[in-house]
Order: sequence, then structure tokens, then C-alpha cells
Amino acid sequence: MAIITLTTDFGEKDHFVGAVKGAIYSELENVKIVDISHSISPFNVPEAAYIIQNVYNSFPKGSIHLIGIDSELNQENKHIAVKLDDHYFICANNGIMSMICAEIAAEKIVEINIHDKIETNFPVLDVFVKVACHIARGGTLEVVGKKIDTIKPIKNMSPFVNDEQTQIIGSVIYIDNYGNVVTNIKRKFFETIQKGRPYEISARSYKFKEIYNKYSEIVNFDMPEDKRHDEGKGLVLFNSSDYLEIAIYKSDNATVGSASTLMGLQMRDTVTVNFIKD
Amino acid sequence: MAIITLTTDFGEKDHFVGAVKGAIYSELENVKIVDISHSISPFNVPEAAYIIQNVYNSFPKGSIHLIGIDSELNQENKHIAVKLDDHYFICANNGIMSMICAEIAAEKIVEINIHDKIETNFPVLDVFVKVACHIARGGTLEVVGKKIDTIKPIKNMSPFVNDEQTQIIGSVIYIDNYGNVVTNIKRKFFETIQKGRPYEISARSYKFKEIYNKYSEIVNFDMPEDKRHDEGKGLVLFNSSDYLEIAIYKSDNATVGSASTLMGLQMRDTVTVNFIKD
Amino acid sequence: MAIITLTTDFGEKDHFVGAVKGAIYSELENVKIVDISHSISPFNVPEAAYIIQNVYNSFPKGSIHLIGIDSELNQENKHIAVKLDDHYFICANNGIMSMICAEIAAEKIVEINIHDKIETNFPVLDVFVKVACHIARGGTLEVVGKKIDTIKPIKNMSPFVNDEQTQIIGSVIYIDNYGNVVTNIKRKFFETIQKGRPYEISARSYKFKEIYNKYSEIVNFDMPEDKRHDEGKGLVLFNSSDYLEIAIYKSDNATVGSASTLMGLQMRDTVTVNFIKD
Repeated sequence: MAIITLTTDFGEKDHFVGAVKGAIYSELENVKIVDISHSISPFNVPEAAYIIQNVYNSFPKGSIHLIGIDSELNQENKHIAVKLDDHYFICANNGIMSMICAEIAAEKIVEINIHDKIETNFPVLDVFVKVACHIARGGTLEVVGKKIDTIKPIKNMSPFVNDEQTQIIGSVIYIDNYGNVVTNIKRKFFETIQKGRPYEISARSYKFKEIYNKYSEIVNFDMPEDKRHDEGKGLVLFNSSDYLEIAIYKSDNATVGSASTLMGLQMRDTVTVNFIKD
Repeated sequence: MAIITLTTDFGEKDHFVGAVKGAIYSELENVKIVDISHSISPFNVPEAAYIIQNVYNSFPKGSIHLIGIDSELNQENKHIAVKLDDHYFICANNGIMSMICAEIAAEKIVEINIHDKIETNFPVLDVFVKVACHIARGGTLEVVGKKIDTIKPIKNMSPFVNDEQTQIIGSVIYIDNYGNVVTNIKRKFFETIQKGRPYEISARSYKFKEIYNKYSEIVNFDMPEDKRHDEGKGLVLFNSSDYLEIAIYKSDNATVGSASTLMGLQMRDTVTVNFIKD
Repeated sequence: MAIITLTTDFGEKDHFVGAVKGAIYSELENVKIVDISHSISPFNVPEAAYIIQNVYNSFPKGSIHLIGIDSELNQENKHIAVKLDDHYFICANNGIMSMICAEIAAEKIVEINIHDKIETNFPVLDVFVKVACHIARGGTLEVVGKKIDTIKPIKNMSPFVNDEQTQIIGSVIYIDNYGNVVTNIKRKFFETIQKGRPYEISARSYKFKEIYNKYSEIVNFDMPEDKRHDEGKGLVLFNSSDYLEIAIYKSDNATVGSASTLMGLQMRDTVTVNFIKD
């Protein structure tokens, strides 16, 4: 049974998500529809790019990922369907696919050309659903679009390295539900530049000299539980998607605070890694 | 396989939605349960009416729509099941169905009478689920209720037109995830009164003399991208549900603001259309 | 078809929930995945305990409940799988199961020991999914863990009764979507201590001498509708999960206020019942 996932900025309240699901079920009785997220910040392409990159390959090969972010068709914002890593992606050509495509080459990209004459202001419902159902029925991309070679990139998503290879200048690309601050520095990239050297990670006035393997490594289990003060401590680790992350142990934006709220770290803020001569 | 949709004000956190789904799966193994929205504002019947009206017919004929808003049974708030446009609706008789029924006549309405002696304060779980599963198994409405002829209306949901037919006085009936402000003026109604005349749309001190076809029509694509200042501009269009909507291009309540936050437009505010003598 | 429910503090935005669903569908094609809640407050074990206790038995026997709250494995936070009331629960041994286990004895508890050598900081994805799919395929708990006899309790979740049996001192354990304030005093416990005596319920400076059967019992239906002022009135009832609850009729945190916002009642606040000599 085909799987169609949904990633949008439609929010949890409006009828948009329900309408898309209804339209899919009206075309296909046997399909699994899976919500990834409908709470992407409105028109926030980098957030959507981060989320879809980190989730798609949990799904079985052949899954169809419909991404509804800033998808109104116009002369600068075309619709594309991409086959990559044996998964299908349907979205606007606005940079959403550039994070995934930077790591894995697309097998095929088409610019969708099945649009009706009448313009729609709900293309996810009126266009993307048709393409998704076409693919779910085993249809090929060529039937719904014409092949293109390149997609639009997102700017400033990759970290910089200085010429001496002593410094990585990264930035915050995502803040998660726990207020953890995710940078654009991936583990493999970090280790390639690091070459085993000690390091100091800086974000605003905060410095970290150690990267943990998991959040609770900050806890001193030798101390009796009521004497510990580990909750609220800042730490750095590679998160489950292998991005360098600044976190606070057992954080909560609404109560004890988080790395984002307590350290004042926001989207696009700089995070620097300095490597120290051995 | 039967489809049961859920539209409630239960929110995303509590166990209420999960309990309803569990109860449905306990009665029926083969059923698709689809969330429309659980973030209707508490007890907000007009919001629910707007959402269900705009979503139901994306679903296949025969779908069963369970609506849990202000559904506690009492002498003034009975439970009904409605067959309309080959869809089934189960809700309280509190006005939720009046927007749909104003456009399409109901085929059949019954007042549900399968309530147990013991009163429940969770009727969606204890009553609506039973009715939905009964219908999903092919049962008729007459078995679960007695036929009635009329349902309770929502007041003040329709726009007014002056005697001279030179003015439509509408109001804000919904504010969507992007802060777009939806009025109760539908395209067909507008065009019937307009008769081709020019017009001026007013909301507070804001005036609009043009209705766009889609959001990005506000963009001047002839300008180089870095010279444009189209994001943040206000515009009016008929939205994907054909309601007159005041929007801001690429709005976001949390960052750049929206039609609702920037123009100070709230639910029930007046939006006026003045038609100008040719 | 197996049912796997999900209860987490992952939030509605991040990719974590989608990743878990994708991983389940990658292991099992025929399974129903049902969201209970992903909006548990971060690391809030009592909230999760309340929700899972009140929802699990709406589902069919044999359902598998995956609970991802504070689940990082460490020497003090092991992973368990529990069979109870013919349902399966997979979670950290952090107190989540203690509310259910206080009412119904577990048939079997195992400490999960299928962890890979490499530590993970996303154990719900890397461990819980594997255990859930193992059970869904008909596997036994002994294969994924070693039997243990007891689980970690939650402290201070039960109400106190004074020696004279004239007073119950309870506390607020949950605040729902409507701002209703749920105490830890269950109907059966209340009635056992009450023995038919009149009572006064106190929360801060608010006093209640009556327990309603449903919310709308506060309404005086003899008055004409426009003369009533019942919305906004405080009342006490046993909620649909049989917990004593302080509510406001037709409350809404965002507009008219709620029992929590208007009476200033928060999690862990004291609610007292005094029984009066006949």
C-alpha cells in the first residue's frame, strides 16, 4: 500500500490538511497518509528542508512526500517532483529539496506541467494531490512534468571554514520542541575538519569544550539524586540527525527554560568552533 | 472502507481524541479515521461551521463526519445526525450544520435518541461514536433517532445588503493559520450584487479596490528580487473556499505579522463593500 | 491488524513523530498507528501517566501503547515493557506506569535488554519501535527483556485523608484544554470516605457544596436565554475519567477565561474536601 506523507505550514486548526487528506482518499482507497508536520513556520523553507531531510528515510522506499510550503505557482516558483534515494518528493522549487540534494544526487527531477488553465490559490490540494496519486498508482514522473536538471538552492545553509582550517563558522538552522538549538554543523563535516584536535564551541558568551553522546551524560550519577543540580545545565551533542546541537538537560520553554530561551539563541545566530593546536 | 472524520475543540494535548479513536476501532476494525481539526476554539460553533463546510466535500461520498463542539446533551442542545449531499454529519443541534444547510438542503435529519439512562459528560465518546459506527456498518438514521425537519440556525452569519444594492456589509467569520482574515462574503453573492460595477472594500481604515486571483499576484516580478518589497503588502482575494479574504503576502503572526495582527482585524469585525456607479 | 498508539512530548512541529511512524511502517505494513498526544509538557511524567491511564482501555485488547516521555536510557532510567489488562505498554521506568499499576496489577513487566552497543539519543525510534513491532508480530515480552517485579512509583499522586476521616487533601494533577482543573480525587475514593455526608470543597478562596453530573447542569433553563449568566460560572463535577474536577461552564483560556486562569489554579495546588457532621 502506497504511503503519502504530508509536511506543511497549514497549522493544526484550519481545514486545509483535512481537505488534502479527503482529496487523496477520494482518488485512492488504499493508501496510508502520514502527517510529518503541519506546524512549520509559515513560508519557512529552511525549517521544512531540515525536517524533510531528517525524516524521509525512516519511511519505506517508494514513499511519496508531499510538501506544502510556499507553494503558490508563479513565474519564479514552479512546482517540481523529485525522485531521490527511491523516495518521491512533490513541492515548490523554492529550496526545500536543496538540503537533501546536497547530500544525495536526485535520480530525476521534473517541473510539473499538469496545471489547469484556471489558476488556483490552493495548489497542494489541486495539483500536488493529483501528482502524488499518480505516482502512488505507479505512474512515472515524465507523465506529469518535463525533466529539468537543477533545483533552486537555499543560501547560507552550509557552515564556513577559514583558510587555516582552524575555525568552523556555523549557524542556527532549527530550534526544536524542547528549545534545543540545532546548528548546520554535521558530525562528519566536524570530524573531517577537526582531525582529532581539541576544540572550543562558542555561542554568544557560552563556551563548550566537550561534545556529549546523549543528554543524560551531563548527570553526575555518583551524587545522591536530591543533591544533584543537573537539570538546567547546558551541553553540546550531535543530535539524532547528526547535527551539532546546543541543549539544556530536561529543558522546557514554558517552565524551566531552554537553550534557546536561556542562552538567547535564535534562528540564524552564529555558532563557532575553534580548533586548538595540539 | 468507511471514513469517519473528526472535528472537535478537544485540543492536541488531552486524551479525548485518542479515546474517541480507540472507541471507534473497538467497534470497527476496518475504518479510516481522519482528523480534520481538534483546535477549534472551545465552544466556537461558527468556526466549526466554517471548517466543516469547506472540507466535507473533499471526502468521498458516504463519509461520516463526527463534530464534537459544545455537544453536552441538555434540553436546549440535542444531538442530531444529518444526511446531506450523500455525506453524514453527527453533532449537536447548535448551529454547526446551518452554514452547510443554507447552501444544500439536508436529505434527512434525525434527533438522536439512543442515549442511555445515565447521563454522560463525554457524549462524543459515549453517543456520537455509536452513531458513527452504526452508519459505517450501513445502518439507517431512523434506527438511531426520530426525524425532524429543521435545525437550529447560527445568527448573523450572512452579510447584509442595503436596499439600494450599493453596499454589502459583511463581517469576519474566521482567521486562518496565516492570520488571513476571512469574511462571510462569498464570490457568487458578491458577483450577484456587483453586476460588474467597480467597488471599494473597507476594513477599519484600510481600503482595497482590486480583488486578486492568488496571493503572489501582488508581486511585481519585473523588479529584481532584492528591490521588491511585496512581502507584507495587504491584498484581497477570494480564498480557496470562495470567501472574500483580506490577506498579507507571506504573512506570519509570529514574525512579520499578518492581516489580523497588522490591520487589527478580529472575529466579527465589519468588512464593507461599496459599489460605485459606473 | 495490530494497533500501536503514540503518546510523547515530541510536540507537533518536529520530525520526531514522523520518524517513529516511518520506522514502524518500515517494519510492519499492516498496522494502525494512532496518535494519543504529542503535546505532553516536556519531561512531564505525571501528565503522561494521567493521559495514558484514561485512554488505554478505549482501545481494543492487545493494543500496544508506546510512550515517549523522558526515555533516554541511563543507569537510573531503564526501559520497560508491561502487559496489563491485556494491553501492552512500552516506556521508560520513570513512573509513567505507576498510576495504572496502582489500580490494576501488571500481568508481566520486563526490563528491555535489546539495546545495541552504540548508545542512542533517540531511543523511542531506535528501541521502542523495535519492541512494539516485535509485540505486534505476536512476540513475547521475555524475548526483548528480563522479567522484573516492580516499577518506579510517582510520588505524591494520591490524595491524603486525615485520621478523623473528615478531610481529603488532594492536589491538581492535570489542566485540560478548556482550562478545567483536574484533581487526584477519584469518585470511588471520594464516596468511600464521604459515607453520604455533606461536604465543602475548597480551592484557594473558592468553595463548592455541590458536585454536578455534567457541565450544563449549572444552567438555569427556566430563565429566558438572554437573561441567563451561566457561562463563566464555576462548578465541580466528576469528569469523564471519574476525577473530581473544578470547571467553568463554557470556558476558554484565550477569551472568557477558565477555572485555571480565573481561579488561579495551577498544577500541584491543593484542593481540600471537608466532610461535615450530619
